Amino acid sequence: MPKRGMLIVLSGPSGVGKGTVRKAMFDQGGTDFQYSISMTTRQPRDGEQNGQDYFFVSKEEFEHKIATGGMLEYAKYVDNYYGTPLEYVQDTLASGKDVFLEIEVNGAMQVREKMPDGVFIFLTPPDLMALKQRLIGRGTESMAIINERIAQAENEIKMMRNYDYAVVNDQINLAVERIREIIRAERLRVPRVYPDYAQMLESKQVENVNSEN
Amino acid sequence: MPKRGMLIVLSGPSGVGKGTVRKAMFDQGGTDFQYSISMTTRQPRDGEQNGQDYFFVSKEEFEHKIATGGMLEYAKYVDNYYGTPLEYVQDTLASGKDVFLEIEVNGAMQVREKMPDGVFIFLTPPDLMALKQRLIGRGTESMAIINERIAQAENEIKMMRNYDYAVVNDQINLAVERIREIIRAERLRVPRVYPDYAQMLESKQVENVNSEN
Repeated sequence: MPKRGMLIVLSGPSGVGKGTVRKAMFDQGGTDFQYSISMTTRQPRDGEQNGQDYFFVSKEEFEHKIATGGMLEYAKYVDNYYGTPLEYVQDTLASGKDVFLEIEVNGAMQVREKMPDGVFIFLTPPDLMALKQRLIGRGTESMAIINERIAQAENEIKMMRNYDYAVVNDQINLAVERIREIIRAERLRVPRVYPDYAQMLESKQVENVNSEN
Repeated sequence: MPKRGMLIVLSGPSGVGKGTVRKAMFDQGGTDFQYSISMTTRQPRDGEQNGQDYFFVSKEEFEHKIATGGMLEYAKYVDNYYGTPLEYVQDTLASGKDVFLEIEVNGAMQVREKMPDGVFIFLTPPDLMALKQRLIGRGTESMAIINERIAQAENEIKMMRNYDYAVVNDQINLAVERIREIIRAERLRVPRVYPDYAQMLESKQVENVNSEN
């Protein structure tokens, strides 16, 4: 039985650049993990390929999947469904390959409930840390705008607490490299490698007993 | 107040090459963390410098430190004490710098009890995973030797469970790079970065209230 793959979830606030970072990482290559393509009921846009950008399905098909527990996570925006089919993720993990999801924060929390041993990475806007300096420094914003920005930052910071790692998206290539390092380090975590060692030893002992017969 | 530094502990079975890997890492440079020098009561060997290789102290001084809670961890081998002075580690962490310890497995477990939020890395011998293949493949070892090797491997594997990461020391440079990646990834862990964000926001809100006066 191959070692089970690892689930990696990249998420973060709307507009932080999750898709851009994910695309840059896979375009660079050297990604020895599988990107899980989302499913949607919206119409393909020009140039979008079924099975590459999305799996495009009918509303009936999507709702049937939801009803039969076939979605790992999903959400409805405007009138369209978006989500991650469970079967593909499960099959890929079972084959020993790591799976990479890039999804919205609500979806990420659904996945966290179902697969708590995944690696959950929160992409943060570069200005979250510089917020204070900026707002004070400029002194041009109205109190209303400042308060709105602070409320938004508060929400984003609270979201972060549900994740394992926080990666600042200050430069796309730096963000990609940090994500790659997190994945490489996570592969060395004892709870992930220990079963291999334990199994190796067990099978050795069986061999041993046999050789004494 | 600066952000508290992170404690990194490298350990592993006797003879696995902990010292060689640690030395290679610091010789390469680019280590933005502090190596914590051990204290010992043994005599300096030729070329060993006090405060560089070890802090060389008298038996009385070492035992006084133990008695007054001044050692983070220690052990006695033959007639000599070896250990890590607590004060240096605490001061360095408090100044915001990460501290790197390279110690024996018993010492690592003492540290784990006192500083459970440290990063504990277990260096494994490269042959642990190849053990089964080797023993079966050669077919030359006596059962006594095979059983001894298996018992030893079992002990080493059990030790691993008390650590966060397992790094195979197959090639020194690869082991060093894995340790560096673990450290970089650990710095992005939410429990480590979250206090910074929370504090930033809080101080912003105080500024805000003030500016309304």
